[in-house]
Amino acid sequence: MIVGESTWEEIRDFDKEAVCLIPTGSLEQHGPHLPLFTDTLLSTGVAHRAHAERPTKSLLYPGIWLGCSSHHMSFAGTATASIATYSAVLTEVIECAMAHGFRKFFVVNGHGGNTEPNGTTLRELKRSYPNHVFAHCGYFSLIAADGLATIMQGPLKTIRHACEAEASMMMYLHPELVREARLRDDQLGMSPAAPSGLNYIQTFDEITEMGSSGYATLATREKGEQLIGLAVEGVVQAIDHIFAGYVMEDVRPS
Amino acid sequence: MIVGESTWEEIRDFDKEAVCLIPTGSLEQHGPHLPLFTDTLLSTGVAHRAHAERPTKSLLYPGIWLGCSSHHMSFAGTATASIATYSAVLTEVIECAMAHGFRKFFVVNGHGGNTEPNGTTLRELKRSYPNHVFAHCGYFSLIAADGLATIMQGPLKTIRHACEAEASMMMYLHPELVREARLRDDQLGMSPAAPSGLNYIQTFDEITEMGSSGYATLATREKGEQLIGLAVEGVVQAIDHIFAGYVMEDVRPS
Amino acid sequence: MIVGESTWEEIRDFDKEAVCLIPTGSLEQHGPHLPLFTDTLLSTGVAHRAHAERPTKSLLYPGIWLGCSSHHMSFAGTATASIATYSAVLTEVIECAMAHGFRKFFVVNGHGGNTEPNGTTLRELKRSYPNHVFAHCGYFSLIAADGLATIMQGPLKTIRHACEAEASMMMYLHPELVREARLRDDQLGMSPAAPSGLNYIQTFDEITEMGSSGYATLATREKGEQLIGLAVEGVVQAIDHIFAGYVMEDVRPS
Amino acid sequence: MIVGESTWEEIRDFDKEAVCLIPTGSLEQHGPHLPLFTDTLLSTGVAHRAHAERPTKSLLYPGIWLGCSSHHMSFAGTATASIATYSAVLTEVIECAMAHGFRKFFVVNGHGGNTEPNGTTLRELKRSYPNHVFAHCGYFSLIAADGLATIMQGPLKTIRHACEAEASMMMYLHPELVREARLRDDQLGMSPAAPSGLNYIQTFDEITEMGSSGYATLATREKGEQLIGLAVEGVVQAIDHIFAGYVMEDVRPS
Amino acid sequence: MIVGESTWEEIRDFDKEAVCLIPTGSLEQHGPHLPLFTDTLLSTGVAHRAHAERPTKSLLYPGIWLGCSSHHMSFAGTATASIATYSAVLTEVIECAMAHGFRKFFVVNGHGGNTEPNGTTLRELKRSYPNHVFAHCGYFSLIAADGLATIMQGPLKTIRHACEAEASMMMYLHPELVREARLRDDQLGMSPAAPSGLNYIQTFDEITEMGSSGYATLATREKGEQLIGLAVEGVVQAIDHIFAGYVMEDVRPS
Amino acid sequence: MIVGESTWEEIRDFDKEAVCLIPTGSLEQHGPHLPLFTDTLLSTGVAHRAHAERPTKSLLYPGIWLGCSSHHMSFAGTATASIATYSAVLTEVIECAMAHGFRKFFVVNGHGGNTEPNGTTLRELKRSYPNHVFAHCGYFSLIAADGLATIMQGPLKTIRHACEAEASMMMYLHPELVREARLRDDQLGMSPAAPSGLNYIQTFDEITEMGSSGYATLATREKGEQLIGLAVEGVVQAIDHIFAGYVMEDVRPS
Repeated sequence: MIVGESTWEEIRDFDKEAVCLIPTGSLEQHGPHLPLFTDTLLSTGVAHRAHAERPTKSLLYPGIWLGCSSHHMSFAGTATASIATYSAVLTEVIECAMAHGFRKFFVVNGHGGNTEPNGTTLRELKRSYPNHVFAHCGYFSLIAADGLATIMQGPLKTIRHACEAEASMMMYLHPELVREARLRDDQLGMSPAAPSGLNYIQTFDEITEMGSSGYATLATREKGEQLIGLAVEGVVQAIDHIFAGYVMEDVRPS
Repeated sequence: MIVGESTWEEIRDFDKEAVCLIPTGSLEQHGPHLPLFTDTLLSTGVAHRAHAERPTKSLLYPGIWLGCSSHHMSFAGTATASIATYSAVLTEVIECAMAHGFRKFFVVNGHGGNTEPNGTTLRELKRSYPNHVFAHCGYFSLIAADGLATIMQGPLKTIRHACEAEASMMMYLHPELVREARLRDDQLGMSPAAPSGLNYIQTFDEITEMGSSGYATLATREKGEQLIGLAVEGVVQAIDHIFAGYVMEDVRPS
Repeated sequence: MIVGESTWEEIRDFDKEAVCLIPTGSLEQHGPHLPLFTDTLLSTGVAHRAHAERPTKSLLYPGIWLGCSSHHMSFAGTATASIATYSAVLTEVIECAMAHGFRKFFVVNGHGGNTEPNGTTLRELKRSYPNHVFAHCGYFSLIAADGLATIMQGPLKTIRHACEAEASMMMYLHPELVREARLRDDQLGMSPAAPSGLNYIQTFDEITEMGSSGYATLATREKGEQLIGLAVEGVVQAIDHIFAGYVMEDVRPS
Repeated sequence: MIVGESTWEEIRDFDKEAVCLIPTGSLEQHGPHLPLFTDTLLSTGVAHRAHAERPTKSLLYPGIWLGCSSHHMSFAGTATASIATYSAVLTEVIECAMAHGFRKFFVVNGHGGNTEPNGTTLRELKRSYPNHVFAHCGYFSLIAADGLATIMQGPLKTIRHACEAEASMMMYLHPELVREARLRDDQLGMSPAAPSGLNYIQTFDEITEMGSSGYATLATREKGEQLIGLAVEGVVQAIDHIFAGYVMEDVRPS
Repeated sequence: MIVGESTWEEIRDFDKEAVCLIPTGSLEQHGPHLPLFTDTLLSTGVAHRAHAERPTKSLLYPGIWLGCSSHHMSFAGTATASIATYSAVLTEVIECAMAHGFRKFFVVNGHGGNTEPNGTTLRELKRSYPNHVFAHCGYFSLIAADGLATIMQGPLKTIRHACEAEASMMMYLHPELVREARLRDDQLGMSPAAPSGLNYIQTFDEITEMGSSGYATLATREKGEQLIGLAVEGVVQAIDHIFAGYVMEDVRPS
Repeated sequence: MIVGESTWEEIRDFDKEAVCLIPTGSLEQHGPHLPLFTDTLLSTGVAHRAHAERPTKSLLYPGIWLGCSSHHMSFAGTATASIATYSAVLTEVIECAMAHGFRKFFVVNGHGGNTEPNGTTLRELKRSYPNHVFAHCGYFSLIAADGLATIMQGPLKTIRHACEAEASMMMYLHPELVREARLRDDQLGMSPAAPSGLNYIQTFDEITEMGSSGYATLATREKGEQLIGLAVEGVVQAIDHIFAGYVMEDVRPS
């Protein structure tokens, strides 16, 4: 069921074991070739398709489009929430659903900058509601690494920012919003390379020339269709897993 | 320009005197006949049409759909922000636009429960940024009372909640989301009547039977088209006024 | 009962159905002719008189004098709370009264800048305490429009700021604090006029020359006495209404 | 100058070296014999008299009556701010005065429960505004110990709560509010006595029988007049000291 | 039991009537002769020794070393919490202990700047948990004034900051951290002297020349040993008192 | 330089390009065999050794021991900060160092639950201070995967919680705190397994039997020495990298 399109009576009568599916995105620069709403369009697009495959097992929420994008603020049009505000929005949406009886929450994220805040927010919720189920992921994390490596032609085999993968998916879902003439590869590396395992906090004006990271010139609609397909498949499997429940069992070798 | 569909370079090059148009709505029950996203669909629908008439004078933001709806929380599916969180979201969106040079902000609201929070939020912003321009309204407030009275057939001549007017506008903009068979009049009055000028804080489970307030059974697509037309016209005039600027002058009778 | 003049035993033994009457005001500039405490003196003055007529039905609190006055901060002596702080004060006063068993709250406001914050604060309280009664108004809103129009001689027939009405009421209640020699009309209008229904956020240094808005030179003690009388009468009726309680009933035409 | 009775022009023209005098009190139970507003009436009464002696050197603010009284909340009618809210109110009042050019602040407190919050609040302000002057005291701390010991007849020689001293001062300043027939001694001691220097946090329902602490039956109007006189004298000297300024100099024995 | 050195099972099985002993300190300048961790080393040193004497009656927490030191921020290396953050840390540590069944809390402070925040924090906790026991002190307050006066040779008979007493105690507990060649007396006095009972908020760059306050050149290891001994003795007595409990009884002369 | 052992003059004169090294840990259950302070002891132990190798390039802070451990709160003795409080502490420590001129910050973490909060906190700092350098890691992340796989004998080749690796490192650094007789393997797995890339939020009472996760019975002092050696080496390299600085350069294949 799509919450925004439903009436309150329909939600009242809906299966309370259903998984509340909450897409998160951003309004943030995506280089010279993709629009600011890219992350939101991709996460909501994936979530919408996954929900369509599991309409009775999931309750689809509107996308939370104001993400944590401070590292992109040097580029015009970007909007960012403080992490506290982002966390408050996600918390309050979930607590309202709880007030009506729902118990299983799945945040489907489309923006890397939201990953940590999604984790911290859900951890605080888990502290308050230990018997509820909270799960989250980037939709891009559900695409298996080997499948991804096969699809991506460029030297980078992970999904970055306004890259070969994101540009491809936008070509598939929203071709009218891709500036094909402006597609651009952009990739800066740290010199000397950072020790493995060390995380530097950097802004995108520091680590790119024009705001994208990856090999967008290699993007095609076909790759986008494949990637979206894999992501949707992953979200559907996740919905099934969360819906069915799990047990924890001893896995020590005997 | 539509911010979500633009690239950062396009925003960077856009007229900084343009009016940032920010629709606000809700995810809240609208009786047995209208969907939870009604307010968001109406405010973004009106704002989108107004922007289309003034594409170079306005910058259209995505709708802020998590409104202040605590008075509807007894009805399933409703989500509400605390007023502090709602205010933080609106503030941070505006401050980000300021960081990129914009100076004129116009919040087009579709939900009565947001009116006070929009006012208090913009007042705090005005305190910090006294030289910027902040304006807000309900799109419904821009429809002149006499026009409205002519269109509305029922005994209530103002736009309420899931009423004759809102149901009509939804029939025009999103007919597939209106449960026509479930259209219902709902109207409770206080007995004895409250003294004029006294405001009681009440929840919608207290003041309605099924969540709507007004004469939705009188709704028609035609009325909806008229109302949307008047609202769009009002927003366009407001954009023109904000864009052009104003002066304050002595109006004492001489 | 006046809470500040009572002992704890007297409050403990007082009727818990009584209406807690909380006046709100400001410490803010009122032009060259009225003192900074004007709003507080008027709201507490009205509330005091109303309470005196209903001493067993109401519990009078001291006036909350630090209001939301950021739009007056360009004028010396003005103090303003942030909206969050104002809201916290009002919330905490009310929650303390609840801790001792009171259930009915009525905020009698004397400053326009507090109207929205009073609304948002009480709405958040209603969310937490749905079975309690919360009401608020400007004392000035309880004066019927036709009565007001008869009393006011100037071209403006509403109560503004340091205007004909406020100056008159101060002449009646605190004549020693009115600078009669400095009474001044002050009124700026927007050109071109804002579209009807559009709210601009403006500061008082923008919309007045010297800080007042209206025709204070027309003020008289007699008008003040009439206005205070009508306001007190309105507050008394409101106390009676809140004290007695109400029911909601179907008002659809049959 | 009394800020509430002044116009903004008068404040604008007033000496910016003047000491902003901010009384703090409470709305809190004072036993069976004194009213809930006792602390506020005493601190504002003392401050008012001291200001009257130094009208050009001090700017008198209205009393902040919502104090930190959580330890009295078991007694009906008491209202308390959280410490965060109390601190916000005091901070915002002071910052507004700073916005108009004032630089010297003196909080005259009438309630022991505010002492620590006054200290912490002013310390945070000092951090932000290192070149401004912040001072505070209980008005009761300005009465020299020997003078106090002479005046107080009971076995306790310090000013406590609704005690011989406070009851006496109320008899002098507000005799109509003292319930003479209800005057009561109340004093509980810890057994075994706490080690010297160890502070237990206790509520007043724990440490008294009826809410007062001391020998109120010994109160007289004459003692009250003496105590008020000494307190006013102390506040006047403090105003003079703050107004004149000081230097720090080496005091090591040579 | 030392909480950091224990396992969760050991804490689970420990006496829930035990006193949770929480040392608080600072990371703040202590003149040219003592290290920044002085307060933390002294409070944790005293607490550790006291705990060793009462291992079954007390549960020793790690020292909270980030204190309220904004008045020392002009001196390099000092770190300070805002008062709100300091209070949050102390509150959360205590509430976690409550979650596991402990009910008696004793904050042993080593830094004057924490005294007020310890008081306000514990008062808010007492409001929420009226049946729990909260006590606090500076370890230095438990040294009797007469004993202190005998030990201290310099003209100041109270423990100040990086003074004769603190330098002596550091010589005893951490001689390797005392810069003996840099020991320095430092003492500025206000001229003219402030009226007794009036508190000025001052920073240490204002009231000292080099950051210490007192006669550190008189420090000796022997004095330090005596002072530490008295402080430990005081903390042990306090633990015994808190552990045993107390009653309140009527102490009025009959 | 070790900040806690230094005087303010020494910090004032220290190289401002030095890397501020801030260890973060926890006070949280570590199974039946390790003490609650394990994470803090390990992160501060590693940081201390690394600092000793680079005493002029790094400034070592005391460990922040109150971590984000809400997922361990079912086990006695655990203390957790809310994420907001944890973030405030880390932010304020860093901002104080900035106030004295330092510009490079490196958080060396010993507790997995702090990883996301360290990231979000430093990202907010980077937003405010874009020209400063912020880096963080788990000390355990600096141990190369292949080295780790060689050292770990059990079926798990990553560092978990009170596992083979942590128990080994504690045997090396603090053997007296390891309950060797209580060493225990503990490992629960989800059934059916979660889809790869999906993160469930779980508490440790849900995912373990007794609080540890891994094969602690395989722990040895020798493994601990090797692991600590590798971690220290990694932190030293990270200090060198941060101290020396880096440039970003084009890495697109030509």
